Amino acid sequence: MVNYQTVRGMRDFLPEDMRKREYVFGVARTIFKRYGFQLMETPAVEYFELLSRKGGGGEDIKKELYYFKDQSDRELGLRFDLTVPTARVVASNPNLPKPFKRMMLGRVWRYDRPGAGRYREFWQADIDTFGSESALADAECLAAVCDVMEELGFKDFKVRVNNRKLLEGLALLCGFREKEMVDVFRSLDKLDKIGRDGVERELAEKGFEANVTKKLLDATELNGKLVDVLKQIKPLGKNELMTRGITELTELVRFTQTFEKKIIVDLSLARGLDYYTGNVFEGAVEGGKWSVAGGGRYDNLVERYGGRPTPATGMSIGIERVIQLMDERGLFSEAPQELIYVAPVNDKVRDKALEITQKLRAAGIPTETDLMGRKLAKQFAYADSIGAKKVVIIGPKDLENGKVTVRDMASGNEKNIPLSQLVSFIKTVIKSD
Amino acid sequence: MVNYQTVRGMRDFLPEDMRKREYVFGVARTIFKRYGFQLMETPAVEYFELLSRKGGGGEDIKKELYYFKDQSDRELGLRFDLTVPTARVVASNPNLPKPFKRMMLGRVWRYDRPGAGRYREFWQADIDTFGSESALADAECLAAVCDVMEELGFKDFKVRVNNRKLLEGLALLCGFREKEMVDVFRSLDKLDKIGRDGVERELAEKGFEANVTKKLLDATELNGKLVDVLKQIKPLGKNELMTRGITELTELVRFTQTFEKKIIVDLSLARGLDYYTGNVFEGAVEGGKWSVAGGGRYDNLVERYGGRPTPATGMSIGIERVIQLMDERGLFSEAPQELIYVAPVNDKVRDKALEITQKLRAAGIPTETDLMGRKLAKQFAYADSIGAKKVVIIGPKDLENGKVTVRDMASGNEKNIPLSQLVSFIKTVIKSD
Repeated sequence: MVNYQTVRGMRDFLPEDMRKREYVFGVARTIFKRYGFQLMETPAVEYFELLSRKGGGGEDIKKELYYFKDQSDRELGLRFDLTVPTARVVASNPNLPKPFKRMMLGRVWRYDRPGAGRYREFWQADIDTFGSESALADAECLAAVCDVMEELGFKDFKVRVNNRKLLEGLALLCGFREKEMVDVFRSLDKLDKIGRDGVERELAEKGFEANVTKKLLDATELNGKLVDVLKQIKPLGKNELMTRGITELTELVRFTQTFEKKIIVDLSLARGLDYYTGNVFEGAVEGGKWSVAGGGRYDNLVERYGGRPTPATGMSIGIERVIQLMDERGLFSEAPQELIYVAPVNDKVRDKALEITQKLRAAGIPTETDLMGRKLAKQFAYADSIGAKKVVIIGPKDLENGKVTVRDMASGNEKNIPLSQLVSFIKTVIKSD
Repeated sequence: MVNYQTVRGMRDFLPEDMRKREYVFGVARTIFKRYGFQLMETPAVEYFELLSRKGGGGEDIKKELYYFKDQSDRELGLRFDLTVPTARVVASNPNLPKPFKRMMLGRVWRYDRPGAGRYREFWQADIDTFGSESALADAECLAAVCDVMEELGFKDFKVRVNNRKLLEGLALLCGFREKEMVDVFRSLDKLDKIGRDGVERELAEKGFEANVTKKLLDATELNGKLVDVLKQIKPLGKNELMTRGITELTELVRFTQTFEKKIIVDLSLARGLDYYTGNVFEGAVEGGKWSVAGGGRYDNLVERYGGRPTPATGMSIGIERVIQLMDERGLFSEAPQELIYVAPVNDKVRDKALEITQKLRAAGIPTETDLMGRKLAKQFAYADSIGAKKVVIIGPKDLENGKVTVRDMASGNEKNIPLSQLVSFIKTVIKSD
């Protein structure tokens, strides 16, 4: 008999995993909502033409995603991020009130080489604001993501910020040419992974002069406070792009003053995607192997998808990495579940047990009872396996006196309770909905 | 410039739609949790071999789903329901504690002809119990689904129930043969859509004798209470399959006594899928064009996917149909959103407005402020467009007196509030998280 498996690089989530994921999604949803972001959804499947459009994935993307044709020969693909589909929605709904602030928590697919922390199906939690040019919109995204990470227990989460105009202006000053920016940014984006040596080697292989590369890497080496970073690049001079970039970055720093300890200005931060146009962000925790959140301003994307010119900014949290870090650090609560198990001691009290179960459920209390005709000891083992907080034992003798016994699963302590007070007693020890 | 669209048969959900969907999902999640069902997830993509396995989709399914190959030539497909992937999980995790009760709320894809209420990407909300043979497990599914529909406002939701063994036994008595059952059940399943005449015609076309068909349709015509329905078929005699089916159905009726008004025994109910083996269910509202929920017992499916023999039962709610019916009946609340808008009257008070916005957010209150540099009237229009409940107006004169003005967006009434009391005042009029 064949044993069927999940598709390579994809995962099932059993209830124990799901509780963790739901907790993280719940925190993200709640905090994003506080910032006025509203939930939106788009299909998993998009026309390949959209996914491969320049500024989005580009033609190269075909190898990196799930591409297929339907029976009418339409070229389709599974979405690889949540930004491109949202930009499509904004482009084709020009009358959405602006700013349009949406959150999206959903799956995306990439035909990547599966590895540690890298999957072919994974979840992202995104917030984006369309229609506002203000750095206040950038700052809101940063504040919301910082609040989420704080709430999840990461006290050491920090965000590096930079500006694409400033970085491009700097690169021009150093001797790179405008048409080379995509290549330069892509290499620079690997600084964390391959180090300065690696970036120098890669740019040399792409044909750039060593002294040009060195100049840029020297100029962007220092990071920290905006004022110090700007001092460092002062000797190089200035061009118009840099001036605009510095203004945007200065505004961003101004609007993030209330959480300035979490913000690091880092002129070497490039971000890999082509479509960023202004401030860019990347968040990580200390000692973390990867960034766990990233984003930036992308003022041209909506127009590229046929919409009106629409400034846009956003940030994305990588859910898989956040969960892995929380596991490593023991940040998930080990508390028992908010769940009651009702155990009939024999067949004669089964109908009564069902009645009591339904009464607890009607009061909003998550409750299970025996579906297997098991003896009491086996029922306890099952109740334990599902993490039940209390077991309500239904026995004929107790019932004669109008009572039941409530056992605490952590301590093993038991308590006799009048049946008439069961619902109110349980409500004091468990969260109902 | 190209205008990009959603893939044919698929939809975007803007925030207004999403609020409705989230409400329905939230009710389903809460009530399913009360019954002890725990959230699970599986990938959107499965190996085609799994999806096409007999008892699941069958080979025909290729035309009805999104089938494709990845770059390593693996044959894949998008899941067409939530039952098949779950059966795979149970088959390949034999040590899951039993009963294994899981809920799953997710998207599925079918390459169907798009039409009214029929999409190529749609959502299902499923509950299933693995490992219990008891009709109590069936009854729990019915009770949970009835509770969900009741909570959503459908007072007229009713579930027709039948039993596959009973129906098969009856069909054998009437003169059909065992190997013909799949064909017979598939035609019978269309009774609602094409009527008795249609089913008679279809079965005649399939080569069945008219008097055999007539006998079965006559015997299954009456529906209502179990006792009356059984009286009707008594003259035909009995076989072993019927006896077993009647026992299962009798047990189910016993365990659904507390909501017996919602239960209709209907011997003509077949359900289209091959894999059902015992009690089957189908729920609808009065005057509804379609069923909105369905399910049944499928005791052989896990074994077919390589697992140990595992009894199973479950029920699924069709989210799209439920939402459409709720829209038609006006069952969604028209209440304004739990959202505050903070409006600075001019540029000088913007920093103060941002500070107040952050204070409200920190208190768990969903709050937006101006990101566009708009004048007050335009800010009101925006606050209205996003459904804000109250607008907090920040003006220089008020601020001098340590006050702000709170405007109720429904009535237009305004109230002067000391800034120090703003958070506690807002908390009395809005739900915080």
